[in-house]
Amino acid sequence: MNIVDIPTDSADEQSVGDARLVLGSLVEPGSRRLHELVAAYGPVEALDRLAAGHESGPLAEAAALRLHGRAPAEFAARLRERADRLGVRVVTPESGEWPSRLAELRHISVDGPNPVDRDTYPPQCLWLRGPHRLDDAVERSVSMVGARANTLYGQYAATELGYGLADRGWTVVSGGAYGIDAIAHRAALSAGGLTVAVLACGVDRPYPLSNTALFDQIAEEGLLISEWPPGTAPFKLRFLVRNRVIAALSRGTLLVEAAARSGARQTLRRARQLRRAAMAVPGPITSQASVGCHEELRREPHEPVRLIATVEQVLEEVGGIGELAPVPRGASRPTDALEPVEQQLVDAVPRRGGAYAEQIAADAGVSLRAALAVLPSLALRGHLREHGGGYARPLPARHKP
Amino acid sequence: MNIVDIPTDSADEQSVGDARLVLGSLVEPGSRRLHELVAAYGPVEALDRLAAGHESGPLAEAAALRLHGRAPAEFAARLRERADRLGVRVVTPESGEWPSRLAELRHISVDGPNPVDRDTYPPQCLWLRGPHRLDDAVERSVSMVGARANTLYGQYAATELGYGLADRGWTVVSGGAYGIDAIAHRAALSAGGLTVAVLACGVDRPYPLSNTALFDQIAEEGLLISEWPPGTAPFKLRFLVRNRVIAALSRGTLLVEAAARSGARQTLRRARQLRRAAMAVPGPITSQASVGCHEELRREPHEPVRLIATVEQVLEEVGGIGELAPVPRGASRPTDALEPVEQQLVDAVPRRGGAYAEQIAADAGVSLRAALAVLPSLALRGHLREHGGGYARPLPARHKP
Repeated sequence: MNIVDIPTDSADEQSVGDARLVLGSLVEPGSRRLHELVAAYGPVEALDRLAAGHESGPLAEAAALRLHGRAPAEFAARLRERADRLGVRVVTPESGEWPSRLAELRHISVDGPNPVDRDTYPPQCLWLRGPHRLDDAVERSVSMVGARANTLYGQYAATELGYGLADRGWTVVSGGAYGIDAIAHRAALSAGGLTVAVLACGVDRPYPLSNTALFDQIAEEGLLISEWPPGTAPFKLRFLVRNRVIAALSRGTLLVEAAARSGARQTLRRARQLRRAAMAVPGPITSQASVGCHEELRREPHEPVRLIATVEQVLEEVGGIGELAPVPRGASRPTDALEPVEQQLVDAVPRRGGAYAEQIAADAGVSLRAALAVLPSLALRGHLREHGGGYARPLPARHKP
Repeated sequence: MNIVDIPTDSADEQSVGDARLVLGSLVEPGSRRLHELVAAYGPVEALDRLAAGHESGPLAEAAALRLHGRAPAEFAARLRERADRLGVRVVTPESGEWPSRLAELRHISVDGPNPVDRDTYPPQCLWLRGPHRLDDAVERSVSMVGARANTLYGQYAATELGYGLADRGWTVVSGGAYGIDAIAHRAALSAGGLTVAVLACGVDRPYPLSNTALFDQIAEEGLLISEWPPGTAPFKLRFLVRNRVIAALSRGTLLVEAAARSGARQTLRRARQLRRAAMAVPGPITSQASVGCHEELRREPHEPVRLIATVEQVLEEVGGIGELAPVPRGASRPTDALEPVEQQLVDAVPRRGGAYAEQIAADAGVSLRAALAVLPSLALRGHLREHGGGYARPLPARHKP
């Protein structure tokens, strides 16, 4: 599917793809200015203008600093050569497997001095490791994010929900971080399901190092993806920039455990801004690691965040018809079928000995006529028994020997 | 304050009061039919019509069965005599200490075959034990309800919140039941605060028996109240009928812990129907005792139930201006004050050795001009240090010996 603003034909495909990946390397992702430049000129001409010095301003200067006088074509060739050597693929908006949901990032940008909030535009390209088509992998997916410093409770919740989603054929998207992210990835893999890790650094050097074995497994069985070219280091702000892609790839984002200041709350915000399902798992009010979840669940009705306690409830938010969650109910009880007047009469029968209908009616606060109409039926159904012209409670059932 | 539909003058006061307490004893509380009768004729004439057989239908028949041929005045005298002997007071809508909030119960009645839903009208009278005026006691009050089968977590939450509310001068209203109710009452008493137990039986024989010591303490330091006259037994449906009074007396109802089928959820429903604050405490998704709370918190935005994790958040719902809850925040960090471009530059400085401004700018993705404008200030503020013509990370602070 072609979702770029400027039409391209297949002859241009290689040059457009090259321009995209060079642009994605010269400029920090999400840039509003770059997005506007590409929307106005198309990727090839936008890159030419930057490289030829026809643009001015901070973006052009920063890009020139990284291009360092090299020709764009040479820069592209070196990026592709390095990626090939590392077994890394690159996809662009013009590629067949580009997820169309990413285009919606164009609509969430808010004006403001903070580039993290202002620069929320779609990626120019994504670098990938793994044996799946990206569009297929995320078609039915849920993002699960949360604290790096998780508790045992968070570990349980992330495992249960991540496993359950993968077990039902849903892909788990997360950020590959220590804590809840890693637990969600692992749970999906344990279920034999698909998981996608969206990194804030090159896919050849996934961060953090302690998750290396996990990243290797994801690269073999799932997908490791990044907006940054191979070799890029994870800077602090890049995690926040990256979060918009975690939110945009999936049908909804689930916050599993988060302290008050957790960065994962920003991913949930992006999901809300994209009008995707925004969900959070509650926890004990005694746990600092759930304070962020509770704050999200306390939002006003116009910014709804849905409380999630079961996998079925996640599917109710993100799934189609036929995947609705059943409302939890306790076990049914023998008296459930009683009408209120029947219940009132049964209650009014003394626990010891019996009583006449008139007394039972008076205690129950119903008319004698109503009592006489109902008491025989209650006896017939075993809720009471006849007793010396009146009624008594049924005898207790004998315990089986 | 006089909130009855029919005006009375002080000469009638005694007879109106007598009529109220007889009506409250002849007919199960909440009755819509009785409410309409009293609204049409006033309490005295309504009672006369019932006693004289001028009314027909199930209500009249049930009332006649309880009156058992006695004159209403005699019936009233015996009720008052018994109450006096037991140290029980009675208040009616015409009494000075009647809480005006109870009148709002007239507006929540819904049509339906189930008397528990149909008969939600205000009490005719309330029987009391305790040294406080009822209207004063509930003016600043919160109802706390929940499961009889609480967990340790529920015990913690109910204690913390009940104590905190009482400690801030708020009265805790509950139902005197085993579990969360009793814990909330005890927590309020521990704080030296006021608590009101609304019973579904006579205040002379509070149920359950295992809470007898608690009821004794409440009767001495708080208030035990009931719509039912002394001597009345607690029938199952009476708990549900009673719940509307728990919800109506206070400014809001807080569900602390509740399984899926907990009757306490009905009290929260009444609070919503009365447009009072409806609140619930979340818990671990692993706990069956929190399933009912989570279901309430999952309601659609048009029936909002607010998640509560702290006493301050309760006060935000029920309190006036100046009692707003602060938004929880983690501890602030030294880098908090950095602008995004500053943070990006700091991140781009290598952890070992140093780098020139041009390299730092390229890695950060900012223009050299911006880097040169900002780097000296970062060094000045100690976020970086100058190093061989470029910049390096600050040296680690020495540990104090």
